[in-house]
Amino acid sequence: MKNCIIAQSGGPTVAINASLSGVIEAALSSNQIDNVYGALHGIEGVIHNHFLDLGKIFKEETNGLALLRNTPAMFLGSCRYKLPKPEAAPELYEQLFCFFEAHHIAYFFYIGGNDSMDTVHKLSDYASSIQAKVQFIGIPKTIDNDLVGTDHTPGFGSAAKYVATSLLEIAHDTYIYNLKSVTIVEIMGRNAGWLTAASALAIHEHSNAPDLIYLPESAFSKDAFIETLRKLLTIKDNIIVAVSEGLKDANGQYIAASDNSKTDQFGHAQLSGVGKTLESLVAHTIGCKVRSIELNVLQRSAMHCASLTDIEESAQAGRESVAYAINGATGVMVTMSRREDDANYLIEYHCSDISQIANQEKIVPPHWITPTKDGITDDFMNYLRPLIQGEPTIIYKNGLPHYLSKAMYPAAYISLQ
Amino acid sequence: MKNCIIAQSGGPTVAINASLSGVIEAALSSNQIDNVYGALHGIEGVIHNHFLDLGKIFKEETNGLALLRNTPAMFLGSCRYKLPKPEAAPELYEQLFCFFEAHHIAYFFYIGGNDSMDTVHKLSDYASSIQAKVQFIGIPKTIDNDLVGTDHTPGFGSAAKYVATSLLEIAHDTYIYNLKSVTIVEIMGRNAGWLTAASALAIHEHSNAPDLIYLPESAFSKDAFIETLRKLLTIKDNIIVAVSEGLKDANGQYIAASDNSKTDQFGHAQLSGVGKTLESLVAHTIGCKVRSIELNVLQRSAMHCASLTDIEESAQAGRESVAYAINGATGVMVTMSRREDDANYLIEYHCSDISQIANQEKIVPPHWITPTKDGITDDFMNYLRPLIQGEPTIIYKNGLPHYLSKAMYPAAYISLQ
Repeated sequence: MKNCIIAQSGGPTVAINASLSGVIEAALSSNQIDNVYGALHGIEGVIHNHFLDLGKIFKEETNGLALLRNTPAMFLGSCRYKLPKPEAAPELYEQLFCFFEAHHIAYFFYIGGNDSMDTVHKLSDYASSIQAKVQFIGIPKTIDNDLVGTDHTPGFGSAAKYVATSLLEIAHDTYIYNLKSVTIVEIMGRNAGWLTAASALAIHEHSNAPDLIYLPESAFSKDAFIETLRKLLTIKDNIIVAVSEGLKDANGQYIAASDNSKTDQFGHAQLSGVGKTLESLVAHTIGCKVRSIELNVLQRSAMHCASLTDIEESAQAGRESVAYAINGATGVMVTMSRREDDANYLIEYHCSDISQIANQEKIVPPHWITPTKDGITDDFMNYLRPLIQGEPTIIYKNGLPHYLSKAMYPAAYISLQ
Repeated sequence: MKNCIIAQSGGPTVAINASLSGVIEAALSSNQIDNVYGALHGIEGVIHNHFLDLGKIFKEETNGLALLRNTPAMFLGSCRYKLPKPEAAPELYEQLFCFFEAHHIAYFFYIGGNDSMDTVHKLSDYASSIQAKVQFIGIPKTIDNDLVGTDHTPGFGSAAKYVATSLLEIAHDTYIYNLKSVTIVEIMGRNAGWLTAASALAIHEHSNAPDLIYLPESAFSKDAFIETLRKLLTIKDNIIVAVSEGLKDANGQYIAASDNSKTDQFGHAQLSGVGKTLESLVAHTIGCKVRSIELNVLQRSAMHCASLTDIEESAQAGRESVAYAINGATGVMVTMSRREDDANYLIEYHCSDISQIANQEKIVPPHWITPTKDGITDDFMNYLRPLIQGEPTIIYKNGLPHYLSKAMYPAAYISLQ
């Protein structure tokens, strides 16, 4: 008997359940896999023996996988649990691998971001050290697009589409008044400006919004910002500025200075407020109408505005992970590469050694940022544009999107005996 | 010769251009109207003689009206100009009515909210006092749903749908973690809680989010709020709270206290920050994970999430206004009533004397708020639900919604000679 566990971890995107649906679909249709278990709340579900019997739900439910594919966040729940190193918690590793053996777990699929790939890395290394047979496959997801080894990450395209759509709609909202104004839109991205850069997709032949784009890859100067704004306001009424939450000054200090003290358990600074900080700066220096807008969690959960390209790629990454697993891969992450020899956008799936991926961060390369550090290049636009194409068909029920949640399946909750 | 002017004023909604498209469609197809002029930036466009020749644009452009119907904010631009009383500015009224006569303006259509209806009221009263022939028709719009004399206002249903959809997606985002948290969603509404109440539409058989809903119609007590939260957190992990920006305490003081000093030119207090205020309160008293989310301007500009019912009704209100004008109406606003004798939702259009409407505000009736003042009744849900039904077909271009803007038609800018 060969069973598999699927789990989800880290922050939400709208495409993580698309990857989950891809894994479930491929696993249920494979004659190499008997039971398909979903661990609740990531690796914590394995530690505490909390599972959903995914076969029970999705073998029976017509359209279930299609609805799951268009459901935001994590159907299985998430965690922020940092798996310790084996030498720091030998009993935990023993417990986990006894559990895997007892329940004939052949494959463990972990859909997550950078920190989740670290977990895949530790578990696959440990398995190799004790010659355990369970295989570990990572499936990437993050709106931040900051994983190395892949052209882009599942979840990024949809967040990019939401950011660009919102920017377009904010521009329409802003342009109606005949007065000088500055609108600052704060976009997620701690160290990497990929998502903030996606705001540039809103630019078209009749609108330059966002007029200015500031990424955390470049040091931010408040003085230069105000000087640039003053100049722009002499030729244009409504200035729209896209800023990354992680903007830092030349000394590496966050512009949202008051939040420097807060860090999460991975040691990442908890940020918020660069928009409000700059709003206050503009109000006190320039004195025109100014507003800041924080896109907040909707940029990672607004399924109703997802990119079909992203959702389809995310589902395919899930399917591919099962094929790689059955072919014997372990300690790997599914990656995507773009065919460079073709004018048409085409993605190929591979898998890469997780040790080359975990705990690294891909930032925007300098040659994709304009020399003035307040915009992005055409090459970067060409990279971004294919990722937001197409709209998934969302099923509406009583005027609202019909999303799945595990609360709908109380009979599928199980502990493995 | 009989010409007409159409103008838009006040804050944006996603349905104001649907009303504009309805007026243009009916005016262009009427043999009673020769030229259809759009005043730029509301009544200011009339004062400064800045117009768009709408006939020139929309007679030629195939699909133009369909695209206009699905474009957010104001195609013609808006203003916040408060028209003085005739006795305070007799020259201005003389200028305006000379202009109307010189250019054969028979009909003036003003699409706007409470303050715009005040302008219609003043102009129609003045016309009557000098026996001028120009007729003034108001077409309501406001996400606030606070105009009297109409079952609901164009623009409200779409904002309600956006608020409920966002709340649903925020709930999915929040429920993934296995820890105690409070999420506070701040929704627009200065004195009337209609839009905040619409968050309740996100509740379904598997989710109670939002768990608590606070409207400005009821005095808000910080102590009672914290006590309620503490109790709820003993039985549930993730609490989601919808609050109106205009929440006040028993003494009538805004909860977002620091903004009491700012008022706009109509004397309305400028609010923001009740979410942040309550986030800080929860952090300091309960100490669990807490986040506040301000839906901000997207709730009034997110056309990609509009209600088809709202868009169709808004367009129809525009068409009806032309029919009423041609039948001789003036000093009126188009209103909507719901057929009460029918289980099926059906709207009838009327027009009401503007003097009964301008400068009044419709708030949520007490019997639609629960006795505990932190929720809404089933009757209120039944009132709200039909307003968010259906999704307009948005045309996408290169991955983003294709919206119109006046910048696309430089040849249509005119001054009347």
